[in-house]
Amino acid sequence: MSDTFTPIHEVGEFGLIERMRAVLGPPADPDVRLGIDDDAAVYTIGEGRVHVFTTDALIEGVHFDRAFMPMPHLGVKAVAINVSDVVAMNAQPRFATIALGLPASMSVEQVEGFYAGVRQACEAYGVTLIGGDTTTARYLTVVVSMIGEAREEAVVFRRGARPGDLMCVTGDLGGAYAGLKILLEQRRVLRETEGDYEPDLDPFRYVIARQLTPTARLRTIRDWAERRVRPHALIDVSDGLASEVHHICRQSDCGALVRTAALPIHPETRAVADEFREDVDTYALFGGEDYELLFALPEEDLDKLDPESFTVVGQFTEASEGIRAQTPEGGVIPLTAGGYQHFSNGA
Amino acid sequence: MSDTFTPIHEVGEFGLIERMRAVLGPPADPDVRLGIDDDAAVYTIGEGRVHVFTTDALIEGVHFDRAFMPMPHLGVKAVAINVSDVVAMNAQPRFATIALGLPASMSVEQVEGFYAGVRQACEAYGVTLIGGDTTTARYLTVVVSMIGEAREEAVVFRRGARPGDLMCVTGDLGGAYAGLKILLEQRRVLRETEGDYEPDLDPFRYVIARQLTPTARLRTIRDWAERRVRPHALIDVSDGLASEVHHICRQSDCGALVRTAALPIHPETRAVADEFREDVDTYALFGGEDYELLFALPEEDLDKLDPESFTVVGQFTEASEGIRAQTPEGGVIPLTAGGYQHFSNGA
Repeated sequence: MSDTFTPIHEVGEFGLIERMRAVLGPPADPDVRLGIDDDAAVYTIGEGRVHVFTTDALIEGVHFDRAFMPMPHLGVKAVAINVSDVVAMNAQPRFATIALGLPASMSVEQVEGFYAGVRQACEAYGVTLIGGDTTTARYLTVVVSMIGEAREEAVVFRRGARPGDLMCVTGDLGGAYAGLKILLEQRRVLRETEGDYEPDLDPFRYVIARQLTPTARLRTIRDWAERRVRPHALIDVSDGLASEVHHICRQSDCGALVRTAALPIHPETRAVADEFREDVDTYALFGGEDYELLFALPEEDLDKLDPESFTVVGQFTEASEGIRAQTPEGGVIPLTAGGYQHFSNGA
Repeated sequence: MSDTFTPIHEVGEFGLIERMRAVLGPPADPDVRLGIDDDAAVYTIGEGRVHVFTTDALIEGVHFDRAFMPMPHLGVKAVAINVSDVVAMNAQPRFATIALGLPASMSVEQVEGFYAGVRQACEAYGVTLIGGDTTTARYLTVVVSMIGEAREEAVVFRRGARPGDLMCVTGDLGGAYAGLKILLEQRRVLRETEGDYEPDLDPFRYVIARQLTPTARLRTIRDWAERRVRPHALIDVSDGLASEVHHICRQSDCGALVRTAALPIHPETRAVADEFREDVDTYALFGGEDYELLFALPEEDLDKLDPESFTVVGQFTEASEGIRAQTPEGGVIPLTAGGYQHFSNGA
């Protein structure tokens, strides 16, 4: 063991993952198709079928604030973000477990509320909760692990994008971040006025729902299956579009050009950015937690899809062209991964 | 949503699980063989094969103290306790994910130390770590989820014990609890002497290892497979022998008689109990964290097993006889589940 003390924020989340990977070595099991590099791990179970396996943690004070996260919403979100990882492999979610760490300040009724949300989401996505572990904790801690299933040939990785593929996203971007801004602002005002304040959240109902109860795009991949469309590469937008574009480009060894004028942005998201006098494109590019799908579509498949179901926001290019954004004014600038980084200094 | 506030310690861990189960309803998926009631959940994957799926959380301040838990040991333990749950279904461990919540006070080197332990345990048990989630947290939080595999007919549940079956355990009991007593005592003395104290832990090396790096009994079930022995019921001893006997009896609808004089106890465990002037049988019955296997063996299989590999500690009986212990003096008394309870008042 080394006596060196390197603070984690010095290497960052992805640097830390690299160090972990070096310690662990490559997966030894020949049934493993893909390990730590994608939205979920993939292993064969025979007869041309694979399972995908993912896990996601939501920790109070890091991922949510109990003051503005109702328990049923938390249950829905914990399931949905894992479904989103399964869907991002083009697989159907099937089984889940939940490890739950409960602070002493929580009631049995709050736990029931949480599970009511879990049940609602499980029913909506066709997931069966089959086990878990419940323990005490100082901060509310929710870790969902989920198994999904697919035919081996249906699985879509991050690594398949090719120069010329269209860069597409479902739904709209930046809404979850706009919702977080509103909730944080509400908390600030409530504290400053010592609670003597009636927040008017109705104009922001959409963006708040995007933050508290995101929807996994299971319907999208079912629609693709019916239309016999399989994108070349696929990832869910959890850390912000720019970060996900970087993931796909690094693993596909290609470049990208994002047209910011094409970014799909909900009017309410725009209204929030205006209110805070911020650039709404930064919400869409770096906001995170939208849980939309980003995919590389071969141009010949464009007509097979319902044009209402996605937006073309750019194109994948040769790696030598780098990862760039075209601004509305027409200028082309490098696009950094940016986005929400865990382990930033002072986090 | 109810406005009632029922503190969790009022209903206890198992009461809470009952309430969760009521909210969730029964599993809808026909491939699920068993849900929340056993060491791991079971689902079929085709061709007569099943996977088992389990998850276990280790949270700083609840399950371990960073002051006396070296990071490699924590990595070993996090893997081993999940392997133990898989083994307790008579299944072979295969794939794992780890969700890791890291406090800012931890270094990259400590995380590497943790994963060195994870790798060591994965290699020892033939597990492949295929994914995870890494995030910040206020307290070090480790949640391992694990998939195991078995032939459908090989799986052993908690529910199969029959009156007349021998009650057997592997290894010895109470050692992990004795190790915890020594570590807590050491911490107390270090605090009182403000660190000016050289602890002599060598005489307690065995029990401390039982607490810090438990061993899952994978070899035992491999030995059973070679000898074509399949117990009627099986559980791992994580909460103390008495608690596990209650689990088997409730699910098998039978009673039990434990002979305390037969409990396998290591000399070092006995020495610790003597030092604290406590009854070593309570360590063995209620101590927990030994991760031995408790199983119900039909009497005709007794000769098929290596007698060195387990101890007969009692017998399963008709449910009407209740769950009882025979003391060394020959008296017979009711045996409560006792053991370590999460969510006890003041925990």
